[in-house]
Amino acid sequence: MMKLRLFTPGPTMVSPDVLLEMAQPLDHHRTSGFKEMFKECTELLGYVYQTKCQPLILTGSGSAAMEGAILGCCKPDAKTLVCHAGKFAERWVKILKRFKLPHVEYKLDYGHGFKAEGVADMLKKNPDVKAVIFVHSETSTCALSEAQGIAKVCKDHGALCLVDGITSIGTIPFKMDEWGIDVAVTGSQKALMLPPGLAFAAVSDRAWQVIESHDSPSFYNDFKAYKKSQADSDVPWTPNNQLVRGLRFTLRQIKAEGIENVWKRSASLAKGTRAAAKALGLTIYAADPADSVTGINIPAGVEDDKWRKSMRSKYGIHVAAGQGELKGKMIRLNHMGYVDDVDTVGAIAAMEWTLAEQGYKFEMGAGVSAFMKAVKG
Amino acid sequence: MMKLRLFTPGPTMVSPDVLLEMAQPLDHHRTSGFKEMFKECTELLGYVYQTKCQPLILTGSGSAAMEGAILGCCKPDAKTLVCHAGKFAERWVKILKRFKLPHVEYKLDYGHGFKAEGVADMLKKNPDVKAVIFVHSETSTCALSEAQGIAKVCKDHGALCLVDGITSIGTIPFKMDEWGIDVAVTGSQKALMLPPGLAFAAVSDRAWQVIESHDSPSFYNDFKAYKKSQADSDVPWTPNNQLVRGLRFTLRQIKAEGIENVWKRSASLAKGTRAAAKALGLTIYAADPADSVTGINIPAGVEDDKWRKSMRSKYGIHVAAGQGELKGKMIRLNHMGYVDDVDTVGAIAAMEWTLAEQGYKFEMGAGVSAFMKAVKG
Repeated sequence: MMKLRLFTPGPTMVSPDVLLEMAQPLDHHRTSGFKEMFKECTELLGYVYQTKCQPLILTGSGSAAMEGAILGCCKPDAKTLVCHAGKFAERWVKILKRFKLPHVEYKLDYGHGFKAEGVADMLKKNPDVKAVIFVHSETSTCALSEAQGIAKVCKDHGALCLVDGITSIGTIPFKMDEWGIDVAVTGSQKALMLPPGLAFAAVSDRAWQVIESHDSPSFYNDFKAYKKSQADSDVPWTPNNQLVRGLRFTLRQIKAEGIENVWKRSASLAKGTRAAAKALGLTIYAADPADSVTGINIPAGVEDDKWRKSMRSKYGIHVAAGQGELKGKMIRLNHMGYVDDVDTVGAIAAMEWTLAEQGYKFEMGAGVSAFMKAVKG
Repeated sequence: MMKLRLFTPGPTMVSPDVLLEMAQPLDHHRTSGFKEMFKECTELLGYVYQTKCQPLILTGSGSAAMEGAILGCCKPDAKTLVCHAGKFAERWVKILKRFKLPHVEYKLDYGHGFKAEGVADMLKKNPDVKAVIFVHSETSTCALSEAQGIAKVCKDHGALCLVDGITSIGTIPFKMDEWGIDVAVTGSQKALMLPPGLAFAAVSDRAWQVIESHDSPSFYNDFKAYKKSQADSDVPWTPNNQLVRGLRFTLRQIKAEGIENVWKRSASLAKGTRAAAKALGLTIYAADPADSVTGINIPAGVEDDKWRKSMRSKYGIHVAAGQGELKGKMIRLNHMGYVDDVDTVGAIAAMEWTLAEQGYKFEMGAGVSAFMKAVKG
């Protein structure tokens, strides 16, 4: 008997309820029933994004929405400021490069989040910037950027503010309209508690003006085509209606729990996990840690592969390795979506048992105790 | 109690077995288990395509693979011949236009399939054509093109042969390698008996040479990125691993039935459906009917909407309407995937009962009897 618990920051755990909801007989997507379901999803997504606009629903990975956002908002005759300090932000740079779009890079060391001040400085130096891209919660380093402050700086400058919210929206406080964010993208397999396969993009009126002012070199991920169809609760290409059905289910759950309570739950899990790490003599990778996922440095004398493999094979706890150059240096534990205190106590216990196997010195139970104290009340 | 039977040519019916397979606990896609599953899928897809190459698996609708195929194979300095006589072929034209790629159009009246001779004539008139695109089975008109003959003509001319096999592969005879096809795309929600959300593209060595000779203006649907990852049984963007699990299940079913038997089943259902239509005094829309889906003209005096809605609400039989300018002129019945003689007898019975409601004159049971005789033995 092996019970698997996915502690990876995407895909996250999917509830059996949702899996069974998606195992219901499949209907066609050109029906009034689907249109109603789709409309409810866009409205509830608006709630999760805290926006009045109805987010687009794309059939694809998060990268599909990233491509669509860049091709729509970053025009060939305008300059984009792209902030990067991790693998996922680097993907945005790659897309800009692939399409030969003018851009200036603002790079920080891995583990750091971007602050409003730094972005303001860059904009002062590059007054011709028309769009700013940053990752709210960088999944690879587990670091948080100051979304609200950066959005304000962008607005003051008159630049569009594009946010990769793939591991932030639905997990940590995110208020699209109040903060003045122009485009925010996410995917189904994170805070939205579904398998991968749907991507989402919310777009402000200001961003639509730019998107609609030109024909972007895109067909499949063309936001204009999605907007046109969505007016009729429809999509331009055959949608993954099985996932849309699951989406309605999980969005209703989020609405019932209340988005503020979801944010509190992730924050508490992150706080407890950081406390556990500290109690075990472990350190956190990020200088500006996000509450969606925690990156813990691998201590001297502990082998990464052996540690993670033992956690999975013996205890069913699947944590993520470091990505790219961070491989071997950290493990990452997810706090998004369908995960609670009891799951996380188990993950920390598994961390402890498997650390002990490698001769790491600590007081067994110290991590779990610290977690329990931190999350209580 | 309402039992729904999807007779739409995509999404087609999904078996409860497959839905439950996809309701199994979700695992991560960066595991050896997923790699094995993925590898098995690409190998079995090769069997369905009748090719030695291992088809790419994209997370997206069929249109994602269409975009990738065009951006890879139709270079800005080369001319493409695009054959069109229906809504889906027109999508290929739209993609060429959107990316301002040089092309010449070969248009036939709706309902007709393309023949080798006609394509050869067009190539003679346009010797500089480097790629030919056609739809094998045009879902909107239910017409079949001569894939084998056209592929030969392309090869003789030295042009790449790109086939939209979205409603042909896995349903009607399709032999990628033997026929010399260069790129063939399909989607998960047709003959592969899954919900929508995955797209597939098989690519010949000849086509890879072209794709690898330039940097296509594509990021998400970049075949080169997929090829690079696939060498390690991986994908460039987070895959819909729930659908990949379902895919392994349905591909194993196809392998067990034998692809030739699957082809025979569709052909028999189509033959029986055409016989039923004839016995009811109805006519077939396509001059060159395909065996994947049958388009039946709506007879004088019968209202399209009323007919289809009555079939669905009273008998759970959901047939497709005509698309675009064919709306109101025809209904379409699917023969792809998880559909058998008994299902189709039921669909024809529902057609008859609901035709009678509108005062259409015929001998009740004549359609069903004709179907039963046609498919027997």
